[in-house]
Amino acid sequence: MGPDLDELADAAVSFVAGGKRLRPQFCFAGWLVAGGRADDPAIVPAAAALEWLQGSALVHDDLMDGSDTRRGRPSVHREFEARHRDGRREGDSAGFGESVAVLLGDLMLSWCDEMFRASALPTVPAALAFLDLCKTEVVAGQFLDVVGQTRATLSVAEAMRVVRFKSAKYTVERPLHMGAALAGAGDGLIASLSDVALPLGEAFQLRDDVLGVFGDPAVTGKPAGDDLREGKRTVLVARTHELTDDAGRALLAEGLGTADAVAALTDLIRTSGAWDAVEADIARLEAEADAAIDRIGGTAPEVLGPLALIATRRSR
Amino acid sequence: MGPDLDELADAAVSFVAGGKRLRPQFCFAGWLVAGGRADDPAIVPAAAALEWLQGSALVHDDLMDGSDTRRGRPSVHREFEARHRDGRREGDSAGFGESVAVLLGDLMLSWCDEMFRASALPTVPAALAFLDLCKTEVVAGQFLDVVGQTRATLSVAEAMRVVRFKSAKYTVERPLHMGAALAGAGDGLIASLSDVALPLGEAFQLRDDVLGVFGDPAVTGKPAGDDLREGKRTVLVARTHELTDDAGRALLAEGLGTADAVAALTDLIRTSGAWDAVEADIARLEAEADAAIDRIGGTAPEVLGPLALIATRRSR
Repeated sequence: MGPDLDELADAAVSFVAGGKRLRPQFCFAGWLVAGGRADDPAIVPAAAALEWLQGSALVHDDLMDGSDTRRGRPSVHREFEARHRDGRREGDSAGFGESVAVLLGDLMLSWCDEMFRASALPTVPAALAFLDLCKTEVVAGQFLDVVGQTRATLSVAEAMRVVRFKSAKYTVERPLHMGAALAGAGDGLIASLSDVALPLGEAFQLRDDVLGVFGDPAVTGKPAGDDLREGKRTVLVARTHELTDDAGRALLAEGLGTADAVAALTDLIRTSGAWDAVEADIARLEAEADAAIDRIGGTAPEVLGPLALIATRRSR
Repeated sequence: MGPDLDELADAAVSFVAGGKRLRPQFCFAGWLVAGGRADDPAIVPAAAALEWLQGSALVHDDLMDGSDTRRGRPSVHREFEARHRDGRREGDSAGFGESVAVLLGDLMLSWCDEMFRASALPTVPAALAFLDLCKTEVVAGQFLDVVGQTRATLSVAEAMRVVRFKSAKYTVERPLHMGAALAGAGDGLIASLSDVALPLGEAFQLRDDVLGVFGDPAVTGKPAGDDLREGKRTVLVARTHELTDDAGRALLAEGLGTADAVAALTDLIRTSGAWDAVEADIARLEAEADAAIDRIGGTAPEVLGPLALIATRRSR
């Protein structure tokens, strides 16, 4: 379609070159647990396609959150804003960056479907039903999140609901389902995989919350306390609100979403006992997931056990 | 998924309740020309699915252009900005509106694929290949457009290239191809439909350019001269740049994208002969499309003739 479009295609390809590739890994794990062969190339396009979905979600997320960085590099809208400014082009640099981010996210979202269907397996239609659910659920979760951010406070229960849609189903449950469905899994195994995925996915997101406050910027690629500066109403913040006293709640109300209060809020999350409480939740959810893995039996412990550890004990 | 999500789903449904439904009409026309039965319900989901794609493109387009209105109502980002402000919610109202618009566009884009595949025809995989092309091409066209807007001037040839991807292929060619492929069309008919679609689609977009400057706001649902106020570098503007004198070019350079110069620019487009030139282009493209329709023969004149008129002689 011409060299003018290289800039867009290159940005798409380089964006998905990084990342943890958790969703493809869970898709592949579902495939293996349901009896798919590890060396069958047909699973590769479907599993890899989920990185386009994740790329789309991240590019649009960074735009909505106004995040400056992603994986230690400028976010897409910031990168194209800089190219516009440095190239002394006509018009508004920030607007140009935002437009490119909207379009790049749309492109990646379209490519997810296209690549997923390239897995030439007779089971693709059954697996696509889970991809469809996944795509609707992740937007629904993000919408609940965006609406939740407009409330003065968010209860732990409400924050956990966002986590369920935005992370647990999207990152773990549906990718497992897609892989399993591609290998021809029946309803029983699909349900058993949900029993693993939901606690595991919730633990995954709680770990993300913790890393968003206490993570090492050199490892996470995000500035320390970024979630607090952006004012995200995470489960960790909701738990702090629940456990702290009136002075703590006043600090939360005033400091969340500002750059100045990051250190004080980090301290509050620790001293209120919220960090410990969330770590206890993670441990409990991990144990639930482990028990569900054991109930599936077969290759499940070998396949899903290591992935569960990566999801919940990671440092980035 | 709970009542909190009704607001998002309702916005999606009410958005696609309006509109000209040109893409479904072209998809249905392709189906008929290729021998599909008019009363076969299997074509309906695929044709209707294209309204989700169009809804997604419009919601994201309005966001990128900062448009306040769509079809005489507030654009989605403005509507949700107002709801946030009127509901006295926490945080930035404009940011909330923008986030909802990003998410709603993503949701509609996902629903396009899902609904298209609900047409339970054995030809769906062949038709999906054209949907995939369509989705990539429309983003590519929008990217070329966004990049084109950052140049001091855009030649008629460059502006026509944007039109080809963003409008001719997206609005006419690929919908015709999808419908024809669903009815089992071979490569010959697909190529013949391109011969109709590209001139017709270009004429369609040129009509849009003219309506964006000279259209009746009561009929178009957009304020008069909106394209000029937004500074769009359309073919009509490129043609004016080409035909006018130095004084006219100075007026274009200074006035395009401002509210004050709308009347003067409207006048310039008329007096420079650009409007006449574009009307002549539309007539020539219409004649090309008509000749291509006649070459297909069969039911093509009856099916495509009226649609060609709607696309190029409309007033909204």
